[in-house]
Amino acid sequence: MIIMKSDATKEQIDHVIREIEKYGLRADVSQGDYRTVIGLIGDERGVPFDHFAVLPGVKEARMVETPYKLITREYARMAGDQSERRIIKVGDVRIGGDEPVFIAGPCAVESKAQLMTIAEGVKKAGAHILRGGIFKPRTSVHSFQGLGAAGEDEAEEALTWMREAGDRYEMPVVTEIRGESQVDLVAKYVDIIQIGARNMYDQDLLIAVARKKKPILYKRHFGAGIEEFLSFAEYMVAEDNKDIILCERGILPLGKGKSYTRYTLDLAAVPVIQKETYLPVIIDPSHAAGRRDLIFNLSCAGIAVGACGLIVEVHHNPEEALVDSAQQITPAECKELITACRQIHKAIGGRKNGG
Amino acid sequence: MIIMKSDATKEQIDHVIREIEKYGLRADVSQGDYRTVIGLIGDERGVPFDHFAVLPGVKEARMVETPYKLITREYARMAGDQSERRIIKVGDVRIGGDEPVFIAGPCAVESKAQLMTIAEGVKKAGAHILRGGIFKPRTSVHSFQGLGAAGEDEAEEALTWMREAGDRYEMPVVTEIRGESQVDLVAKYVDIIQIGARNMYDQDLLIAVARKKKPILYKRHFGAGIEEFLSFAEYMVAEDNKDIILCERGILPLGKGKSYTRYTLDLAAVPVIQKETYLPVIIDPSHAAGRRDLIFNLSCAGIAVGACGLIVEVHHNPEEALVDSAQQITPAECKELITACRQIHKAIGGRKNGG
Amino acid sequence: MIIMKSDATKEQIDHVIREIEKYGLRADVSQGDYRTVIGLIGDERGVPFDHFAVLPGVKEARMVETPYKLITREYARMAGDQSERRIIKVGDVRIGGDEPVFIAGPCAVESKAQLMTIAEGVKKAGAHILRGGIFKPRTSVHSFQGLGAAGEDEAEEALTWMREAGDRYEMPVVTEIRGESQVDLVAKYVDIIQIGARNMYDQDLLIAVARKKKPILYKRHFGAGIEEFLSFAEYMVAEDNKDIILCERGILPLGKGKSYTRYTLDLAAVPVIQKETYLPVIIDPSHAAGRRDLIFNLSCAGIAVGACGLIVEVHHNPEEALVDSAQQITPAECKELITACRQIHKAIGGRKNGG
Amino acid sequence: MIIMKSDATKEQIDHVIREIEKYGLRADVSQGDYRTVIGLIGDERGVPFDHFAVLPGVKEARMVETPYKLITREYARMAGDQSERRIIKVGDVRIGGDEPVFIAGPCAVESKAQLMTIAEGVKKAGAHILRGGIFKPRTSVHSFQGLGAAGEDEAEEALTWMREAGDRYEMPVVTEIRGESQVDLVAKYVDIIQIGARNMYDQDLLIAVARKKKPILYKRHFGAGIEEFLSFAEYMVAEDNKDIILCERGILPLGKGKSYTRYTLDLAAVPVIQKETYLPVIIDPSHAAGRRDLIFNLSCAGIAVGACGLIVEVHHNPEEALVDSAQQITPAECKELITACRQIHKAIGGRKNGG
Repeated sequence: MIIMKSDATKEQIDHVIREIEKYGLRADVSQGDYRTVIGLIGDERGVPFDHFAVLPGVKEARMVETPYKLITREYARMAGDQSERRIIKVGDVRIGGDEPVFIAGPCAVESKAQLMTIAEGVKKAGAHILRGGIFKPRTSVHSFQGLGAAGEDEAEEALTWMREAGDRYEMPVVTEIRGESQVDLVAKYVDIIQIGARNMYDQDLLIAVARKKKPILYKRHFGAGIEEFLSFAEYMVAEDNKDIILCERGILPLGKGKSYTRYTLDLAAVPVIQKETYLPVIIDPSHAAGRRDLIFNLSCAGIAVGACGLIVEVHHNPEEALVDSAQQITPAECKELITACRQIHKAIGGRKNGG
Repeated sequence: MIIMKSDATKEQIDHVIREIEKYGLRADVSQGDYRTVIGLIGDERGVPFDHFAVLPGVKEARMVETPYKLITREYARMAGDQSERRIIKVGDVRIGGDEPVFIAGPCAVESKAQLMTIAEGVKKAGAHILRGGIFKPRTSVHSFQGLGAAGEDEAEEALTWMREAGDRYEMPVVTEIRGESQVDLVAKYVDIIQIGARNMYDQDLLIAVARKKKPILYKRHFGAGIEEFLSFAEYMVAEDNKDIILCERGILPLGKGKSYTRYTLDLAAVPVIQKETYLPVIIDPSHAAGRRDLIFNLSCAGIAVGACGLIVEVHHNPEEALVDSAQQITPAECKELITACRQIHKAIGGRKNGG
Repeated sequence: MIIMKSDATKEQIDHVIREIEKYGLRADVSQGDYRTVIGLIGDERGVPFDHFAVLPGVKEARMVETPYKLITREYARMAGDQSERRIIKVGDVRIGGDEPVFIAGPCAVESKAQLMTIAEGVKKAGAHILRGGIFKPRTSVHSFQGLGAAGEDEAEEALTWMREAGDRYEMPVVTEIRGESQVDLVAKYVDIIQIGARNMYDQDLLIAVARKKKPILYKRHFGAGIEEFLSFAEYMVAEDNKDIILCERGILPLGKGKSYTRYTLDLAAVPVIQKETYLPVIIDPSHAAGRRDLIFNLSCAGIAVGACGLIVEVHHNPEEALVDSAQQITPAECKELITACRQIHKAIGGRKNGG
Repeated sequence: MIIMKSDATKEQIDHVIREIEKYGLRADVSQGDYRTVIGLIGDERGVPFDHFAVLPGVKEARMVETPYKLITREYARMAGDQSERRIIKVGDVRIGGDEPVFIAGPCAVESKAQLMTIAEGVKKAGAHILRGGIFKPRTSVHSFQGLGAAGEDEAEEALTWMREAGDRYEMPVVTEIRGESQVDLVAKYVDIIQIGARNMYDQDLLIAVARKKKPILYKRHFGAGIEEFLSFAEYMVAEDNKDIILCERGILPLGKGKSYTRYTLDLAAVPVIQKETYLPVIIDPSHAAGRRDLIFNLSCAGIAVGACGLIVEVHHNPEEALVDSAQQITPAECKELITACRQIHKAIGGRKNGG
C-alpha cells in the first residue's frame, strides 16, 4: 500500500502507478478528499517497498499481509472516505442506506404468468427488488435446472420476462448466473447480477462478472470462513467494481443426528463483516432454513443483528413451486415479515456493525 | 407410551406402572384433564406392547423410537396440556411467559464487593436474575478456576455472597456446578442450578442435579446437534424435573482461517426447539461472541428470533475482570440492550416457535 | 431407469431412447454382456414409468430417487458389468488396477528448467504421472496465480513444457483448469484434466471439461459431503465420460483453537466411495496436511485405507517454491514414500472398499 | 517454568517449590539426568518470574503461555528426557513401545459367559488387552445403559467377571467410568481406567481418576480440537499421572447430506499429537465408523499413520449384541486385521510422529 502526500501531483501518482506495473502488479487508486492511497493488486512479496517510499510525492509505502485489503473500512478511511457504509444505488433503491431493503420473488421463474403474479404480490407486500432464478445451480443433474437449461433462446425469453416484470412493477431485478458463458446475456437484461454460493470460489467467473460494472449480489459458500469470503470478494473489487452486496445464506450445520434446518444461519457474520468492510450485508433466510415456518423468525433476527436487507423466496402457491417448494412463503406472509422488520430496524437504532 | 382411557381408575394406572417396572423400566406419569399418559423410561425394545394394550383402562400402547419424547409438545398435548410453553417460576420471575427474562452478572465472582456492585448495576439496568460463576470450567489447568477452586469453605463463602446479593437486590440467583461433589452445596444457596456446555454430556451429573428439584439452566455443548441436546435434557425430565431452561451459547465455527467470533450462535435453534418441546430457550450472546462489541447486535437477534430471554455477562469494569474480560459489558450497556430487546419483543408479536 | 430384456433389439432400444427424449430428458445407455440398462438424465418426476414398462423389449422401468445413480456399482452391475472397479487407462498407466498409482510434481510450474528437474526426479523416485500447476486457484488476489495468469501465450508455453516433460520422461501429465475459457487450450496438451476443489461445484465447467472425453482428476471440495461430491461427479458421467478419478484432499477441520493441519483428511471416504461407485479414488496428502512432515504418514495411511493412488507435491528445493513451499517434499522423500506404500498395498491384500 | 542449574541442591529445589506455593500454584517437578525443571500448575499471570530468576540454584524462569505444557516433548526434553515416547507398562504389555498394541473385546459386557467367550476369542486373535463396557454412556435415556445401571452390586459383579477374564486369559483389562461416584469401585478391579469421549471435558472427573495413579485411556471428544484435547489431558498430568493413553475415535462429520460413517476419523491427529507430546496415541475405528465393513481398512490406516495401537469392538455374534451391533467384528476378523497391521507397522519403519 502506497499512501501519497496530500499535495502529491497527478504526475507523481502516475509515476508510482507505472512503477507498480513494472513489478507485474496492478494499481488500485483511491482518490480521497485529502490524499490518495494506491493499493497493489497481486503478489506483493517481491516488491521493494523501500524503493517506493522515497519516490516523489510518496508519504508511506508498506506491505499489507492480509488476503484482502481493498474492501476494508481501514483502506477507505486512509483515502479519506469516512462514511461507514457504501451505499449501492440501483434505480431508486439504495442498499446500505438508512432503510432495510427487501428483495423478493420466486426461487425459479416457471412461466411469464407465474412471474407477473408474484411480482405484483411482492410489490404490494413492500418489496423493493424482484428476484427470480433462470439458471438454477442444482446438486443433482437429475433435478430441474431452470428454464435457462432449455437453451439460449429460452434463457433469453425468460430474461425478457424479468425485465418486463421489473419495469411494470417498478422494481430493479436480480438473477443468478452460473457460468462464464452466461455473463453477457444476463448483464443485458438485469440490474443486479447474482453469484450464488456454489460459485463463490470461481475466481474466473467473479472477474468476468465484475467487469460488467453492474452491482453484484454475492453469496457466501456454506463452507467458507468469513476471511475466505472477503478474500474472494476482493477479486471483484480489484476489478474496480465496489458495488458488491454480500449475502449470508447459511453455513454447514453440525454433522451429527437429524438436521432441523438445511444450513446454520451465521448471523454474527453480519456485524463482523460490516465492521471489517464498507460493503452492505444482507440475509437469505429461505435457503438457510429450507422450511417455511422459520422464515419470519430468521428474517426478524437478520434485521435485528444489523443486516442491510433480506432476500426472500416468495411464491403465490408455494406447494406447487417446481424448486424449493418447502421454503417459499406467500406474498401475505412476506408483507407481515416486512412490517415486523421495519419496527425492529427502528428498535436497534442503526447499529449495524457492533459499533 | 401407554395412553389410558379417559375413565381409567387409579388402580388401573397403578397396575400399568407396576407392569412397566417388571420390565426394568420406570414410568413417567402425566395426568391431564382428560386422560393420563404414561411414558416409559428406559430401553423399550424388550417391552411387549401387545400385552399392555389389553390391560384394563388402557386405550393405546406403542413404542416411541425417538431418543427423546418426554420433553416434546406432542407428548404434553397427549396428556391434555395444550399450553404452548412451560412457564418456569422462580420467585416472582416467570421464564417462558409473556415477557423476555434477562439474566445478568459477572462471569466470575471475584469478591463480595465486586458482586454487590455489579448486582446493583444489573438490577438498575432491568435484569431479573443474577448470575455469577464460582466453579469455573476452564480449558486450561493453568487458568483461574474460580473462587470455588480454593476449597470448600471458600466456595461456600462465595455462595453466601450470591445469596445475599440476590436477597438484597430482589433477584433469584444462578450459578454453575461442574461436578457431582458440588451439587449439595450449590443447591443449598441458589435458586437455579446451571449445567454448563462442557458438562452437557455428563449424564450422571444431570441426574444428580435434576433430583434436587430446582430449576436448571442447561447449556448446549458447542459440538452437540439439537437432537443430541434434547436427548440429554430428557435425562433430567426423566427424573421428573421439568423445570429446564435450555440455553444456546454457540456451536463450533467453520474451521478455516481467522475466527472473528469464539463460536457460531445458532439462532435458528431457538424456534426449532421451541416448536419441538415445551421448554423455554434463552440465548447467551457473551460466550458465543467472545467480544463485547457484538453483544448488543446478538442480543437483539436472540429476542427477534423468539428466545424467552438472555443471559449476559456484565462487569462494572470489564477491563479488569479476571475471566473473559473481552466479552463483558457494563451495566449501562446492559440497560441499553434490555430497552432495545423489549421493543423487538413487541415487534415480533410473540412468535417464538415459527408457528 | 429402464432395464431392457436380454433379447431386446437395437430398434427397441432406440425406440426407448426416443421416448425418453420426448420428455425432455437424455438417455445414458449401458450395454452389458447380458442386457442393456438405460439411465434417464434429468428430472424424472414427470416421466410416466408405467408407459415405459410396457414398451417392446422393456423388462422393468422405475424411478431412482438418489441424486446420483449413473456412477454407482449397482447401476453398472445391472448392465452386466461385474468388475469391482473401472480401470482408467492413460498411456501405459492403469488407474484403478492392481497397483497403486503415484502422481507427483511441483505445485506450480515456475520455469522450464524447474519442471524438467522435478520431472526427472519424480520419474526416478517411481512416479507414474507428472503433475504441475499453471492456472493456480488462490484464496487471495494478492497471491501468485501461476504462469497462466500472465496471458494466453505464457499459459500455452508452460503447457508445452508439461507436454515435453511428459514425453521426455515417459509419464502422462495432468494440470488443473480453473475456468471455462481454459478448457480448449488445456485439453490440447495434457493427458488428464484436473478440476480442483474450489471448482467442484461449478457444474457448467464440469460439463465443458467432460465433453473433451479425456480422463478427469476431480477433487472433493473441503465443505462437500460425500453425497454431494458424488452428485456433482454425476454431471460428468452424464456427459458419457466415465473416466473420472476422484480425489480426497481434506475437509474442513474442527473450528476451534489452533489448526495443526490445513484440512482434515477424510480417509474413510476412500472405501466408502469405492463401495458405492466403480470409480477409483486417490488421496492428496499435500494439501490436506499443508506441512511436509506429515506427508509420509498420511500417504501410508491413504494406501492402507484402500486408495488407488496418491497425488503428491514434489519440489527439488521446497524452501524456494513460489507456492505451498511448506508442504512440498523432495524427490528422495518421494521415493521413500513410494517404497513404503508398495509394501503396505501388499499387506492389505487388495481390500479397497471395505468388502 | 523454572529451569534449575545442573548443580542445584535439593534444598534449593524445595525452596523454589515453597515459593511457588506461596502464589497459590502447585509445582510439577521433573528430575532429569542433567537438571531439574519445575513446571507451575495454575494461573501464572500473577507470578513475578523476575523474582524467581534470582533465587539460588535457578538457571532460568519464564512464563509459558500455552494452555498445556507438562505433556509436551519440549518440556520433557528440558528435564533431560530425550526419549521420543513414554512407554506405559501394564502387566507385560508396553504401550508406546516397539510393537503396536491391540485392545479388543465387547462393546458392552452382557453376561459372564459372553465375556469369557469373547475374551478367549480375542486372545487367540492376538489381542493384548481386554476391553468391556459396564457403565455405558448413551445419548438416550431410553437405551440400554450397561449392567452397571442396574445397581452397585450388579456393577461390582460385572467388574469381577472382567478381572477373572483378564486373569484367565492373561490380558490386562480396561473399562470405562462415567461419573465420579464410580471411580473407587472401578479402580479396584481394572488395570486401565477409560474416560470416554463424552466425559472428555469433565475436569473434576479427570482429576479424581488421575489420583488413582493407574493408567488412563482417554478419548477425544468428537467436537474437541487437538489443542483442547491436550489441554484437558494436562489436568491429569498435573496430578502427577503421566500414564495417559490418548485415543482418537472420530470427530464430527461434515453436516450436510447422508452420513456414510458415524464420525470422521482424524488420522492426522496421531502424528501431530505424537510430535507435540510424549504420550502414545491409539485409534478406535469401531466408534468412528459405526459400521463393520470399514473396520479393516480404518485399522490398517491407523497403524500406517503411526498409531501405537488400536481399540476394537469384537463380539462372537455381532448381530445379537445389545449395544452397537452394527460395528462389532468377529474374533476371526480381528485376527485378520492384526496380521495385516503388523505387516504395515514394519513397512512404516517406526515413523510415528512425522519425523
